[in-house]
Amino acid sequence: MTDALILHEDPRSGNCYKIKLTAALLGLTLEIRQYDILKGETRTPEFTAHINAHGRIPVLQVGERFLPESNAACWYLAEGSRLVPEDRFARAEMLRWMFFEQYSHEPNIATLRFWFQYVGEANLTQQQRGQITLKRIAGQDALQLMDEHLASRQWMAGGAISLADIVLYPYTHVAEAGGFALEDFGNICGWIKRVEMTAGFIPMD
Amino acid sequence: MTDALILHEDPRSGNCYKIKLTAALLGLTLEIRQYDILKGETRTPEFTAHINAHGRIPVLQVGERFLPESNAACWYLAEGSRLVPEDRFARAEMLRWMFFEQYSHEPNIATLRFWFQYVGEANLTQQQRGQITLKRIAGQDALQLMDEHLASRQWMAGGAISLADIVLYPYTHVAEAGGFALEDFGNICGWIKRVEMTAGFIPMD
Repeated sequence: MTDALILHEDPRSGNCYKIKLTAALLGLTLEIRQYDILKGETRTPEFTAHINAHGRIPVLQVGERFLPESNAACWYLAEGSRLVPEDRFARAEMLRWMFFEQYSHEPNIATLRFWFQYVGEANLTQQQRGQITLKRIAGQDALQLMDEHLASRQWMAGGAISLADIVLYPYTHVAEAGGFALEDFGNICGWIKRVEMTAGFIPMD
Repeated sequence: MTDALILHEDPRSGNCYKIKLTAALLGLTLEIRQYDILKGETRTPEFTAHINAHGRIPVLQVGERFLPESNAACWYLAEGSRLVPEDRFARAEMLRWMFFEQYSHEPNIATLRFWFQYVGEANLTQQQRGQITLKRIAGQDALQLMDEHLASRQWMAGGAISLADIVLYPYTHVAEAGGFALEDFGNICGWIKRVEMTAGFIPMD
């Protein structure tokens, strides 16, 4: 890739960290532009006009082009690398867990962490409070499914670390900040250690 | 592909229809196994033991292997075909809109349709009622973003129909069943017609 790679991000976001972790494991250099989502810095007219009309980070800038959605950005960086399985079915299984992450994992596990750790329980709206129980149950289900899947395998898809592991690791390893007990999921705990021992790994903070 | 392709589905689900539409456009034959999600037929011990531990449809069965997540199944069928852009960045943009569909579109637009059309407003729980306003706003935002994106282009990603269009079409074209007014989104209305005029197109019902 010859175009400069610029990541528009908030360092507290696990969705942004996914992309940095992918780049680190591949030895790619990202230029970083930071925004504070709690101060609305991704909702300014300038941001929505030039970076992302959806008003969200992360956005991966490739030369003059802009790519929102964290998992699409990871894919762009990693396509054709050892982080994407060569086998067609394993590649689709990797995507299966990446879609699971965005549909069943992140909206529950990451959102509760965001509410408790950054917004603060006292500042939650009535509507947010009303969703805590459902998100707790759905997040627990997601962790249970991952844990059962990892009972018979080392990695989420294929025979080696892939984007499926990279996109699930960020919000899983800090799930306790959202009130989930990782000690109940022994297979996940072992998998977290394997991700962290991978050559080139960088931590979230 | 030499393995038999079997789709485990509920015909009312737009997520299942995506896969049938992908197969139709590619001239692939799917064997169909139907389940009634309202009767809990995907939550039986047999289903979770053999088809999908997550208890959900669709699941694409490829020989003896099982692939949950509708968008991963579409990818498996279409990889390497004209429904996936050849250009690396356009391919990542296609995935961007597929992740958008699962994170920002389906949980709002499809869920409201499911609640109003199949569960029935009178049967909604208090927690579901409490989410209607937020889902209405988020669904409206998702349609607005699509409409603006389509102001200057014919298709969601790349220069031709791709999986991005195929996975966004099902719940968009029936959004009115969830209370959204498609007439407010002229670019989406034109795009719906283009999808429906594509050679090989099959309707949802």
